[in-house]
Amino acid sequence: MKQLKAAVFGASGYSGGELLRLLDRHPSVRLTHAFANTSAGALVSSVHAGRAHGDAMEFESFDGVGSLDAEICFLALPHGEAIDLVPALLEAGKIVIDLSGDHRLTNAAEYERFYKHSAASTKIMSQSVYGLPEWNSEAIRSARLIANPGCYATSAILALAPLLANGLVEPDSIVINGMSGVSGAGRKAAIEYSFVEVNENIRAYRAGDHQHTPEMEQALTEIGGKPVQVTFIPHLIPITRGIYTTITARPSAARDGRATRFRDAFEEHYGDKPFVRFRAERIPEIRRVANTNYIDIGLRVVPDRNQVIIMSTLDNLVKGAAGQAVQNMNLACGFPETEGLL
Amino acid sequence: MKQLKAAVFGASGYSGGELLRLLDRHPSVRLTHAFANTSAGALVSSVHAGRAHGDAMEFESFDGVGSLDAEICFLALPHGEAIDLVPALLEAGKIVIDLSGDHRLTNAAEYERFYKHSAASTKIMSQSVYGLPEWNSEAIRSARLIANPGCYATSAILALAPLLANGLVEPDSIVINGMSGVSGAGRKAAIEYSFVEVNENIRAYRAGDHQHTPEMEQALTEIGGKPVQVTFIPHLIPITRGIYTTITARPSAARDGRATRFRDAFEEHYGDKPFVRFRAERIPEIRRVANTNYIDIGLRVVPDRNQVIIMSTLDNLVKGAAGQAVQNMNLACGFPETEGLL
Amino acid sequence: MKQLKAAVFGASGYSGGELLRLLDRHPSVRLTHAFANTSAGALVSSVHAGRAHGDAMEFESFDGVGSLDAEICFLALPHGEAIDLVPALLEAGKIVIDLSGDHRLTNAAEYERFYKHSAASTKIMSQSVYGLPEWNSEAIRSARLIANPGCYATSAILALAPLLANGLVEPDSIVINGMSGVSGAGRKAAIEYSFVEVNENIRAYRAGDHQHTPEMEQALTEIGGKPVQVTFIPHLIPITRGIYTTITARPSAARDGRATRFRDAFEEHYGDKPFVRFRAERIPEIRRVANTNYIDIGLRVVPDRNQVIIMSTLDNLVKGAAGQAVQNMNLACGFPETEGLL
Amino acid sequence: MKQLKAAVFGASGYSGGELLRLLDRHPSVRLTHAFANTSAGALVSSVHAGRAHGDAMEFESFDGVGSLDAEICFLALPHGEAIDLVPALLEAGKIVIDLSGDHRLTNAAEYERFYKHSAASTKIMSQSVYGLPEWNSEAIRSARLIANPGCYATSAILALAPLLANGLVEPDSIVINGMSGVSGAGRKAAIEYSFVEVNENIRAYRAGDHQHTPEMEQALTEIGGKPVQVTFIPHLIPITRGIYTTITARPSAARDGRATRFRDAFEEHYGDKPFVRFRAERIPEIRRVANTNYIDIGLRVVPDRNQVIIMSTLDNLVKGAAGQAVQNMNLACGFPETEGLL
Repeated sequence: MKQLKAAVFGASGYSGGELLRLLDRHPSVRLTHAFANTSAGALVSSVHAGRAHGDAMEFESFDGVGSLDAEICFLALPHGEAIDLVPALLEAGKIVIDLSGDHRLTNAAEYERFYKHSAASTKIMSQSVYGLPEWNSEAIRSARLIANPGCYATSAILALAPLLANGLVEPDSIVINGMSGVSGAGRKAAIEYSFVEVNENIRAYRAGDHQHTPEMEQALTEIGGKPVQVTFIPHLIPITRGIYTTITARPSAARDGRATRFRDAFEEHYGDKPFVRFRAERIPEIRRVANTNYIDIGLRVVPDRNQVIIMSTLDNLVKGAAGQAVQNMNLACGFPETEGLL
Repeated sequence: MKQLKAAVFGASGYSGGELLRLLDRHPSVRLTHAFANTSAGALVSSVHAGRAHGDAMEFESFDGVGSLDAEICFLALPHGEAIDLVPALLEAGKIVIDLSGDHRLTNAAEYERFYKHSAASTKIMSQSVYGLPEWNSEAIRSARLIANPGCYATSAILALAPLLANGLVEPDSIVINGMSGVSGAGRKAAIEYSFVEVNENIRAYRAGDHQHTPEMEQALTEIGGKPVQVTFIPHLIPITRGIYTTITARPSAARDGRATRFRDAFEEHYGDKPFVRFRAERIPEIRRVANTNYIDIGLRVVPDRNQVIIMSTLDNLVKGAAGQAVQNMNLACGFPETEGLL
Repeated sequence: MKQLKAAVFGASGYSGGELLRLLDRHPSVRLTHAFANTSAGALVSSVHAGRAHGDAMEFESFDGVGSLDAEICFLALPHGEAIDLVPALLEAGKIVIDLSGDHRLTNAAEYERFYKHSAASTKIMSQSVYGLPEWNSEAIRSARLIANPGCYATSAILALAPLLANGLVEPDSIVINGMSGVSGAGRKAAIEYSFVEVNENIRAYRAGDHQHTPEMEQALTEIGGKPVQVTFIPHLIPITRGIYTTITARPSAARDGRATRFRDAFEEHYGDKPFVRFRAERIPEIRRVANTNYIDIGLRVVPDRNQVIIMSTLDNLVKGAAGQAVQNMNLACGFPETEGLL
Repeated sequence: MKQLKAAVFGASGYSGGELLRLLDRHPSVRLTHAFANTSAGALVSSVHAGRAHGDAMEFESFDGVGSLDAEICFLALPHGEAIDLVPALLEAGKIVIDLSGDHRLTNAAEYERFYKHSAASTKIMSQSVYGLPEWNSEAIRSARLIANPGCYATSAILALAPLLANGLVEPDSIVINGMSGVSGAGRKAAIEYSFVEVNENIRAYRAGDHQHTPEMEQALTEIGGKPVQVTFIPHLIPITRGIYTTITARPSAARDGRATRFRDAFEEHYGDKPFVRFRAERIPEIRRVANTNYIDIGLRVVPDRNQVIIMSTLDNLVKGAAGQAVQNMNLACGFPETEGLL
């Protein structure tokens, strides 16, 4: 069987490494290039652990689209770098899946406010499809440029979307507390992410001001059909992988608040989605989703406080990054949605 | 100098061990008994680490108030057990500091709903003083029975009290997310608290239904002078010590929402409190308070989302338990408030 | 394609869970039973995380060989329990892979000394094949009862065997320090394995007296052809998975001690072994082997101290238990050695 | 009471921070300067957690001995930097306690081989006293320049010294495996010490070639009166604080190997030493010594393998660095040996 040729840009980071691992095992894909300029020449296995095959593969410098034989390109680059690279890749007919935040926000001013970088052109953004398969699969199937969602954004949007789609919660009442493992910060030399500073510690950061806030609001506004505003507070937790997101919202005053309505919404929208496991009665735990492409969602309605509590959890490097990127590739390339991901 | 004689009940648990450590170093106190029925006869040093003195001290069985020479008794017992013990101790003229939840809630029905145990008698409860020194020091100074606050409750009440006291937030808009280290669950053999189940994991528990919820509401209602209802979601985090609490609330519609009003409230109420470190501009971190009696509080006002975010952190075994108990003893016994705690 | 039917006994433990995960993905096997008496009736997914398929599978009680349709049985039971079960399984024509220590030691007195339990019968032991594929593959291919090696034993034997086989180190000079993650102690409720006791801690245990000592000596004596005696000291380390083993030995006085001799021995014996990665120049790290069936081995010769240092690392639940069991099954059942393990 | 004025050089590192914490609480000392050139002007409390006093203290740049009013100087600088600073400090009449390796090795060639830096002058080295109070207290009492021992070295030397002093083990048979928390590597931005690389991992480093090897050999040779050669292999473990050292040695052929001889040696030498807790029957654990100046030592004799196993543990930042430095100061300045350390 002919395999699709794939290249990973930014292959020395944690999302890049996870892409290599997943693509390595994907039966319909052949990994041809692992680009990482600063590590060029080093063995992939000197940086990333546990690769099954290709122990002898080396990181390469990218030297232009001209000679690039890959048909699909995964960009796991720092924010800002994908903007420069994407036009040439699209021009050359590549399918591009961008894991950075560069092609997610349709509002250029918001991009520039949160990412401190000039936004992608309107022309490019008009081709960008938000890669959340559970809500956008039709557009993804025909996309050439897919903006892979952020890790926190995926966990919050999937946890809230059924309730907003069905008008069950007030769109201005949403508080999102996120707790993330340290791999979410990327592979970098920094005292603030050193073991001694992170271990036995918790700290909030960018409280009320994180760049995934407008991404959540954009997606939820579109899904709910009404403007949504959220307060989002992320926290750094001393674990390697995983995001845990706890959300509160007020039930919609106009609707019957029985708990079954909330459960029904999740079952209606996610009953046939292979990577969403909704179980109202089971509290999600990171350890159940680590190293998988699943998102687990739980629900608790507290009638005497007029609140719905939704908890979701996923692996930030898999469903929150590389796994979702492969899921998007599967849709865009006509492979089975779960191929290489179970 | 004559030293006060002190006994610790429930001395083999984590709060009990922390009490031993603190009392050991306290210049005005002599630790005379470490009661722990199931460990009676064992060396204290076989259970608790790093004690400075008294390597030869043994746990004892408690066999009645008659022969008890201690003048002050610290109860670090499981919920429910203190209720049976307190009347005889008070009768015998002891000062009692109860670290359990048994003497905190004035509403017996709420106690019984959340603790699944018969409440203390009205007569005993009429003598019980809520031991939150920053808001209740006058009553504590003359108390014979002090109900030492819960760990989560301390972190949430101290973070919210100045805002409610000054009418700056809506009392029905409060969402509290707590993240706790595992020592908060006590020293026990249980698969759910075993290393492998907790490590690299996060999970919510008793979401919207935790027993510290009515304690927070009782204290905040009294401080704010208006009924307060909170939604509280605790989470178990893979660290040994520390609680991190992130709170959102809506600014009061009737008041000017300038950020300075919020800061001023904290500075007004805590400027002279030795164990509260409020720094609006610094995000609290557990590592700054671990093994100390400090609570650190930070603040972020998000005007375009109409939310105030308050973050607080403390060591659940110190300011959240044994340290606050010693602080209460200092007040009740006329010692300097910070003695033995710096 | 017809699939082999497999049953797992002791399926609720950590090795059992890893077996379920691996067998689930194995193309030539169909998992028909997950036996776990104390968890019978519970969903497998309520205990074990992240299973790809079979979310609805339940633990069962084992009620006798008569109705057991599985052709291969994996025993992940506590030491002692396999002894009672194996005769009937063999009688019924099952292939048995025993992950416990019950069928490893040929010397019954040593078994009884270290395991405090009556040894298996001589008749059964005569059928037992030690399941270390890198050194015993021929016997494994025709075995009906395979004694799957211990986790520490696998890491030490594979690290030493080439040197003893080639007579390069003194067989009475060997010191083995093992460091293990906590999953090695099994899934159990015990204060000594609770998070708070293990986290931020290290402790040796059974120093010089661990039950894997005679297992190492038996295998290495056979491989080296001379009596081998080792001093083995295991340590508990606050990680979930993985064993790190550091070994020192004196170069054989009779042989040339040049470093190349040592390297050559590893390359000679392991050059074609799919799960052994020997790299003299790279220090092994647990993170490279976690969740894989690889063992990584490194080597350092210190001529001016007359010592060879060998370091090996593996995942105690995979190459140290369930993965090696599947590797043994692959050999015994005629599947490719690496099937389901890459 | 007049207090001794103390300055800390390299105050922004982990040992420096621990010195600040200990000196802050020391009744006979007043901390006057916290020198840290790269952090000059920053609040000490912005880097180090939980300081009791002096929240407003700032790091300073050191601008010469001329204006330095401190009487005692603690140097917690990177190796190599103390060499340049010490002559002027001694000249100016300061007592100097150097926590680096710069003034420990009497053999300049060995210093240069292991530290890759020119050694201190013979004149300075002739004044340097090795600051191991349990074996060298007399010299320390009159020293002006104290070379504070390394963390691994302290744990190994104290564990072996009684046996070598009494001629109970063969001096060429010693194997030392050390396991250290990450704070031992210092406070630095480096991928290899980032949380994600260290967490859930173990790795050996500088196996057989660590710079504490000659330090151990020098001290043990002096104590034992015969040349000692050790093989030392350090490992990085995912904990913040603590060193665990496991040592094997062969009992001396010339001496009676009864276990009591070994125990007696420890009790003879350490019975009156306030910070050494020898308990043959209790396996040491890091959690018992963390945040204290104690070293715990345990012993296991394995007669049928002709080995003695000694296990020791200490907090690398306290008994392994800052605490031992304060203990040395106490001796050199005539304070009680345990002052400020219990």
